[in-house]
Amino acid sequence: MSSRLNVAVVGAGYWGPNLARNFRASVDWNLAAICDLDIERARRVSDSVGGVHVTPDLGEVLADTAIDAVAVATPARTHHPIVLAALEAGKNVLVEKPLADSAALGAEMVASARERGLVLMADHTYCYTPAVLKIRELVEQGFLGDILFVDSVRINLGLIQPDVDVLWDLAPHDLSIMDFVLPAGLDADAVAAHGADPLGTGKACIGYLTMPLRNGAIAHVHVNWLSPTKIRQMVIGGTRRTLVWDDLNPQQRLSVYDRGVDLQLQSKATADARAANVSYRLGDTWAPALPEGEALASVAAEFAGAIRDKRPARTSGEAGLRVLAVLEAATASLAEGGAPIRIAVRDRERTLVP
Amino acid sequence: MSSRLNVAVVGAGYWGPNLARNFRASVDWNLAAICDLDIERARRVSDSVGGVHVTPDLGEVLADTAIDAVAVATPARTHHPIVLAALEAGKNVLVEKPLADSAALGAEMVASARERGLVLMADHTYCYTPAVLKIRELVEQGFLGDILFVDSVRINLGLIQPDVDVLWDLAPHDLSIMDFVLPAGLDADAVAAHGADPLGTGKACIGYLTMPLRNGAIAHVHVNWLSPTKIRQMVIGGTRRTLVWDDLNPQQRLSVYDRGVDLQLQSKATADARAANVSYRLGDTWAPALPEGEALASVAAEFAGAIRDKRPARTSGEAGLRVLAVLEAATASLAEGGAPIRIAVRDRERTLVP
Amino acid sequence: MSSRLNVAVVGAGYWGPNLARNFRASVDWNLAAICDLDIERARRVSDSVGGVHVTPDLGEVLADTAIDAVAVATPARTHHPIVLAALEAGKNVLVEKPLADSAALGAEMVASARERGLVLMADHTYCYTPAVLKIRELVEQGFLGDILFVDSVRINLGLIQPDVDVLWDLAPHDLSIMDFVLPAGLDADAVAAHGADPLGTGKACIGYLTMPLRNGAIAHVHVNWLSPTKIRQMVIGGTRRTLVWDDLNPQQRLSVYDRGVDLQLQSKATADARAANVSYRLGDTWAPALPEGEALASVAAEFAGAIRDKRPARTSGEAGLRVLAVLEAATASLAEGGAPIRIAVRDRERTLVP
Amino acid sequence: MSSRLNVAVVGAGYWGPNLARNFRASVDWNLAAICDLDIERARRVSDSVGGVHVTPDLGEVLADTAIDAVAVATPARTHHPIVLAALEAGKNVLVEKPLADSAALGAEMVASARERGLVLMADHTYCYTPAVLKIRELVEQGFLGDILFVDSVRINLGLIQPDVDVLWDLAPHDLSIMDFVLPAGLDADAVAAHGADPLGTGKACIGYLTMPLRNGAIAHVHVNWLSPTKIRQMVIGGTRRTLVWDDLNPQQRLSVYDRGVDLQLQSKATADARAANVSYRLGDTWAPALPEGEALASVAAEFAGAIRDKRPARTSGEAGLRVLAVLEAATASLAEGGAPIRIAVRDRERTLVP
Repeated sequence: MSSRLNVAVVGAGYWGPNLARNFRASVDWNLAAICDLDIERARRVSDSVGGVHVTPDLGEVLADTAIDAVAVATPARTHHPIVLAALEAGKNVLVEKPLADSAALGAEMVASARERGLVLMADHTYCYTPAVLKIRELVEQGFLGDILFVDSVRINLGLIQPDVDVLWDLAPHDLSIMDFVLPAGLDADAVAAHGADPLGTGKACIGYLTMPLRNGAIAHVHVNWLSPTKIRQMVIGGTRRTLVWDDLNPQQRLSVYDRGVDLQLQSKATADARAANVSYRLGDTWAPALPEGEALASVAAEFAGAIRDKRPARTSGEAGLRVLAVLEAATASLAEGGAPIRIAVRDRERTLVP
Repeated sequence: MSSRLNVAVVGAGYWGPNLARNFRASVDWNLAAICDLDIERARRVSDSVGGVHVTPDLGEVLADTAIDAVAVATPARTHHPIVLAALEAGKNVLVEKPLADSAALGAEMVASARERGLVLMADHTYCYTPAVLKIRELVEQGFLGDILFVDSVRINLGLIQPDVDVLWDLAPHDLSIMDFVLPAGLDADAVAAHGADPLGTGKACIGYLTMPLRNGAIAHVHVNWLSPTKIRQMVIGGTRRTLVWDDLNPQQRLSVYDRGVDLQLQSKATADARAANVSYRLGDTWAPALPEGEALASVAAEFAGAIRDKRPARTSGEAGLRVLAVLEAATASLAEGGAPIRIAVRDRERTLVP
Repeated sequence: MSSRLNVAVVGAGYWGPNLARNFRASVDWNLAAICDLDIERARRVSDSVGGVHVTPDLGEVLADTAIDAVAVATPARTHHPIVLAALEAGKNVLVEKPLADSAALGAEMVASARERGLVLMADHTYCYTPAVLKIRELVEQGFLGDILFVDSVRINLGLIQPDVDVLWDLAPHDLSIMDFVLPAGLDADAVAAHGADPLGTGKACIGYLTMPLRNGAIAHVHVNWLSPTKIRQMVIGGTRRTLVWDDLNPQQRLSVYDRGVDLQLQSKATADARAANVSYRLGDTWAPALPEGEALASVAAEFAGAIRDKRPARTSGEAGLRVLAVLEAATASLAEGGAPIRIAVRDRERTLVP
Repeated sequence: MSSRLNVAVVGAGYWGPNLARNFRASVDWNLAAICDLDIERARRVSDSVGGVHVTPDLGEVLADTAIDAVAVATPARTHHPIVLAALEAGKNVLVEKPLADSAALGAEMVASARERGLVLMADHTYCYTPAVLKIRELVEQGFLGDILFVDSVRINLGLIQPDVDVLWDLAPHDLSIMDFVLPAGLDADAVAAHGADPLGTGKACIGYLTMPLRNGAIAHVHVNWLSPTKIRQMVIGGTRRTLVWDDLNPQQRLSVYDRGVDLQLQSKATADARAANVSYRLGDTWAPALPEGEALASVAAEFAGAIRDKRPARTSGEAGLRVLAVLEAATASLAEGGAPIRIAVRDRERTLVP
């Protein structure tokens, strides 16, 4: 199947133009239409990519049998009806984060796609940056050993959003990346969320998420709209090596430390003896070269690849659902003063995804 | 009172030699004796400071009416009996962290000193570094405005301790500094602690503490023994300015950002309207020059000053007790899977301390 | 004079599209034409800015009396004939660096513009970045005191140019900035240039320029195509303060150090006594906030302002000539093994420019 | 020969105590005496190392046949008579930098030691730091390929010295390190020196050295007493890799970049064709782990090793002489306004040293 796939972009607001531009530039895709209720907005996007059919009518797009896929970049609360309609019309779907308003609605979307054998892909753009792709590769190859902890900080002076708190605004990036790079995905059973709203804006502007992972490991996220210094850093500690991703250091985004703590496990050792058997490795640091490349171009390629190979996308609807489930539980935890909340809706099949 | 005060150092292990050296070098003090059950160890410390009376007998030290004060650098579990005996003998006391094994024992020590009108000082050495002294001064002068959040990270490849977890090992630094610089001290009502022991050492090697502060502010501490990169950073966000303390950047340890988020408070504003009234200030950054100076020399001077002026030390026994109470509650929270635990024993009188 | 000025962009290669885009976006200008011998190239630029008249015929542009100014972005060797023709046709001219192939030709251009009362402006784009504008302002206000030294480093893995060496390729940036920010401009009498071509490419790939300035100060430039680490740093030392510009640190591009060396000057002091009277100030560091803004937009505004106010541009033809004269002398110095060479053609009138 | 060697430290001023302490702590040495005309000063050093014979009489030391070696830490102008006397008395000698006041005197000392088969070692302490030892090892193994350039910057707010300029004060560090790590040592034929004294102290406070090396490579040194920011950085560019040593970044002192510029050499290629054949490699960065270790302890060990193995020290008198010759030529170049000056006295035998 060497011909191009046809895609329509639905939603011509903030993100739609980026999708349109990347589908237009892709060898895998033919950008067939841009759909927005505000037809003027659709036209402006069309002009910016050299002209393409525009329509305010989603029904028209879904009825067009030549169209293989739709990319949905509308407000989050509209994802559920639009995506379900598209799937019912037999279209493969790429959808912006968050997948839906709630995990229950998201689960419906995932189930519908699975039933129909269609691709439902979450546009977790950040996962397709060269740095994150390299992290996934290193973790997958066992280069870090078993994962001990993941700690992510994403803070800056941010626009306080009218509708969502800082967790829903920023943490999806960290959560989708963790889901993408960890060998078992974001397989936490529970999450504790702590937040603060010291300016009285009515929503948390500072947030912390803690998730125990399997085998005693732990994941932690710190997001903050009120910090004048920008920090975007993720540390992934493993039994063999530790990786630090500093996204604001373009000269050395990734550093892999060949040092760590070793523990000589002896079956009958007491805790004390175990502590005594800890030793330290001080080794070299290594910073892999990263290729250049726009993440959204890789998103477009992956979407086409998944459709052609009839396989789940690397950031599947399930992945989007796992992120959504954590956010939903985090909101509940915040409401209960930080008590750990069980992550109710999850999809354990992620590990089956290649 | 211009003559020197007489002090005995009790405990000649890891920290005792530093105390002895600084008391010896101080114009406020006469180093009168070094006391350790292991008399050879005491002698080595004596030699290193040019010779001083040594004894294995604490009773002898306490019975000596010429001695005004003792500095206790023995293991934590011995602090309670030694300090109480010293106070009962009418000595002023400087004691290493943690104040005691438990908040209850610590409270007894604090009460005893208060009753007798003696100085009980916690050796929170870090508080007397030029950087922390400057932070306290800036906060006190209202330079940062009202405090919105304090976030402290202290991670490095650390020696796994045989007897304590990472919270008890590292967090006392962060907690004592927060207590020292915040206008109302460490006035949290509750703490949630999350930890992980992914190597199975029998104790947490990674720890997170979250404490809601008054007025909607929040304090957070991240300590970690398993990180190959060293980070020692504290961010203090205020309504007027935000301060970043990067202790590993000797060329610019403190940075004060004259930027932040403003909120035009209107009495009847709804939450939504409030969010809409948030605006951003982008101003200069300022890095104050810091004087040189060994923190422990300032500890010795402060101890003498408190005795002479008959006032609480700036890091009083009460401060040590507040830190201890948080650690104790944190241990309980860890045991309950991260549930927030009320900080039971606290001393609200800190704000009265000048 | 509130109506827009008409400008034609001559040369549609690498830089022309940027000029066209900025003139198009400017409230001061009407982009009237794009002229290139390669009419297809001109058309592509026209398309990218929404359509404008294109022509391969420079004569047509110069004959159009509605056109107030031309911006010349053709190869350096063509600057002289094109600019002279434009000036003779009564047009104001913005010209890319370097002004011309040689200082003698450049001087002719400057003289021609002066004679005719037309604006000849050098497109020293870097001078109009927020950082450099701020540096100029600080120096002008005497914030740094008298200038003691300027040291500029601009190194990275660079494309080895077919026609010019590293000095002609990179140093114009440093030299034009020095000319822009120093109170007396680039007023060096001589330059010594050292270079190396360790790969045998036939031209220097590493270069150093040293220029003694008035009053014992010194300027130094290090440019290097062979360095895998990128450094873009300028240090300007003054008697009152020192400024460091690190262009690769977006979080703190400018740092002003309120520290330095003081010398108590005594009229009859011997050199020894002078040395003894040196003392040190250790003060705060200050990092001014910088506004956002595209430099080329400011270039367009300055060009219009100079034409309207009938004044020299802040980066005048004379400034371009001073840079050219240094480069020419540097080439001679390189040829003579680094011997200092007198900078022959200079224009001392810079200090009269407001 | 397993017994300890006997050494006397001559000169108990600034550096003598460090020498005494390290010889005392060494398993190779017995610290036999400290000699200083100011016997009180000698006594204080003796006390600080636990007591050793002191004398004001150099003759007594040299007459003592039990003494194998002397370490000379007296003012530079006294090195020549003391070292010659020591060599004539059959002692091996470690001498502080600079070797002597002039290259001619230094050459006499080197010749005398060679004649007598004694070790004359230059105390180029910096060469024995873990970072520099690792750099030497990497260069020696061909890890960087052929050396293309060496650029060293050593600037900070420095004490203006009463007797020497900034070149003699700071550049010996850079020059001795270059001599130590470069495969052919500091084999420059000529040096051009530029300096400035903008405060009128009577000596250069800012200095630049440029030295063409063999095969078209170049070495450059920037030293500066007037900079409020401290920079200590050396970049060594090679055909295979480039190394950056940032001595103020303890977390990553050495970075090796596996990137660079490649040139496909073709025997008959013209310069233009050569330029066209340049290509770029973008590879990983690697930061070797460095062991801890006090450099002066390694100096003591190397001095003993050279004596026992009857071989030149790795920082031999010849190395000291090469550094001295560059400084002397630099002073002449400064006096002639920066004209390149032939380095007259050199010792080409360095390459024979293992």
